[in-house]
Formats: sequence, C-alpha cells, structure tokens
Amino acid sequence: MNPTHNRELYFATSNPHKFGEAKPILAASGIIILHLPFVHDEIRSDSLEEIALEAVSVAFSKLKKPVFVEDTGLFINALNGFPGTYSAWVQKKIGNEGILRLLRAIPPKERSAVFRTAIAYADNDGKTKTFIGECAGSISLKIRGKGGFGYDSIFIPDGHTVTFAENVSLKNNLSHRYKSLRLFADYYLSM
Amino acid sequence: MNPTHNRELYFATSNPHKFGEAKPILAASGIIILHLPFVHDEIRSDSLEEIALEAVSVAFSKLKKPVFVEDTGLFINALNGFPGTYSAWVQKKIGNEGILRLLRAIPPKERSAVFRTAIAYADNDGKTKTFIGECAGSISLKIRGKGGFGYDSIFIPDGHTVTFAENVSLKNNLSHRYKSLRLFADYYLSM
Repeated sequence: MNPTHNRELYFATSNPHKFGEAKPILAASGIIILHLPFVHDEIRSDSLEEIALEAVSVAFSKLKKPVFVEDTGLFINALNGFPGTYSAWVQKKIGNEGILRLLRAIPPKERSAVFRTAIAYADNDGKTKTFIGECAGSISLKIRGKGGFGYDSIFIPDGHTVTFAENVSLKNNLSHRYKSLRLFADYYLSM
Repeated sequence: MNPTHNRELYFATSNPHKFGEAKPILAASGIIILHLPFVHDEIRSDSLEEIALEAVSVAFSKLKKPVFVEDTGLFINALNGFPGTYSAWVQKKIGNEGILRLLRAIPPKERSAVFRTAIAYADNDGKTKTFIGECAGSISLKIRGKGGFGYDSIFIPDGHTVTFAENVSLKNNLSHRYKSLRLFADYYLSM
C-alpha cells in the first residue's frame, strides 16, 4: 500500500459542521484531515458533482496539495427537487420552518426526499475524482431534535422514525455524507 | 447627437417575455433592439448587478457588438429577501403557490417586497455600465390576474390595488424593468 494516507490531506469548506462530521469518519480509516477554511462563490448548476468539481479545482489551484470539497443538497420530490443545489442558501433564507410551510398540505407518504453529497477530490497532481453518497428519507411534519445542522431536524431516513437531529449517531453511520466519505476513503487508501 | 441609436443593439436573454417587454419600451425612445437568444450559467451572488455584469461580459465576448442583459429579482422582506437573485429558479421549483404558502400567516401590512432589475450594457468596445430600476410593492394574498409572467400575479405595486398581472399596462409604465430601461435609454441616446 502506498502511504498516501500519511500525507497531508485538506478538506476545503467554509462550514465547520461539515468538517466536524467528516473528521471522525475518516479518522476511523486512519485518514487525518486538515481544515482549509474556504469561501468560494459556487457555480449555479443542478448538478452537485459539477459544483464540487469546479470548487475543488479552485481550491487545488490555490493550495497545490491534495484536497477535497463536498457539496450537499436536499431534494424534496413534492417540491420538484427544491431546495436541491441551493440548499444552504434556502436554509439561510427560509429555514426549516419555510420548508414545512411549503409542505403543509402534503401527507407523510408524499413527503419523500433524498439527501445527496458529492465529494470532489484533487490529488497531488490536481487530477480529480468524485464520490456520491445518497440517503433516502422523508420530511417530518414538524421540527424534531437539536443535533446536527441544516435540514437534519426535518429529515427522517428511510427505515427509521426519528430525524437525524434526534439521533446524530444514526446520521453519522448512514448519511449521504458518511457514504460519500466511505467511498472516498476506500479510494484514497487504495492509491 | 451621436447616431449610436441607429447602430445594432442586442438584448441577450433566454427569456422571450423579457425581450417582449423591453422592445416597445425602448422603441418609444427610437431604440430598436435585436434578440440574442442567450443561455448562460449565471454566477451565484446576492447582487443583481454583479450577476448582470458577468453575464454581459460573456455575451459581449461572443458577439463583439453592443449588447445588454438584465437580471431581475423579487426580494420579499418577510422572507429575508427570498427569492432574490434566485427568483427564476425558485419560480420554476415552487411557483407563486409556494411563495403564498411561505407567507400564509403574514398579514398584508407585513408582505412588503421590492422588484429590482439590473441592466448591464457593454458598448462597442466592451466597456460596461449598469442601470438599476426598482419597484416597491407587496405580495397579494392570492394569485390574481393572467397577464405578465413570473411573479406578476402576486405582486401589487405600492399605490395600487391590483397585481401586475391584472394590469399589464401598469407594469409597462412603472415597473423595475421599465425604470431600468428608461435609465439605460437616456444614457444610450446621450452617447
């Protein structure tokens, strides 16, 4: 095995919550990450992968070291995929209360949604690769729980009855972010 | 007077409604415009001006002729400025019904909003200038009227009791787009 995982690896993100989630997940595979505080105007696109690839190119061009970024979106089927790739902005503007108001007349069975994360990694040479994680679930009828961040308090993963915010360890073991990080870790360790 | 207004002038937009509104307003000043169908991934920004300037640079770099673009947003105060610079995307995803659901508990007095248009013009040499038009108003309690497009059927301009969609000639004479086009026309004719 190539000792890639002993080299410096940066997670470029402006969101300390995302870094806080990623760090222990990767540490469990022996991958230690550093935080690169990264403020970047993302491109507009309906593709998380496209957004992440553009962002990692910018991050790599500044850092010139192995680095990854992630972009996450919540896609609600009854709202045509809203808030999707604009999830962070929509959260800031209308919050979870806004999402619940938009879904007020929608019964539980029709509140399906999927969380998606795209990780884009640039290696030592700037060559990029993406890793996608998904978590299917539904939007709760009200805000529940205090853990997590963003939409966690209104998202119930399929097969469970609590929101991510009510059970953060659940999130850390089956979330979109967890899955994408696991795929990335497997790749990173195999290089 | 320099015969600028006899030269070719393009309005770059993917939205035929916007072109249809602009054409007669500028024609009233003797400015004839041509439609440049223009599909472009706008940048993410909370500034309409920044978005329009970036877009007109791209349009000019392709066309190499005088061209303008516009970017319009509806900023609803009770929603922290949502949908703002993402108005077109939000309209596509949740529509006017979505906006009304978000405001359901908000009384008429607290439903203030402002429509803003930024025009960015690039002259023969690619030098750019922007023109801002605003129209203050409020969001109606229900969808009213069939004229106009986008948010027109839920926007009541201040000093009036009907929506833009109920009285399109009202829109054509006091709207954000009208005002920005008038500012632009004055400048264009003075050059």
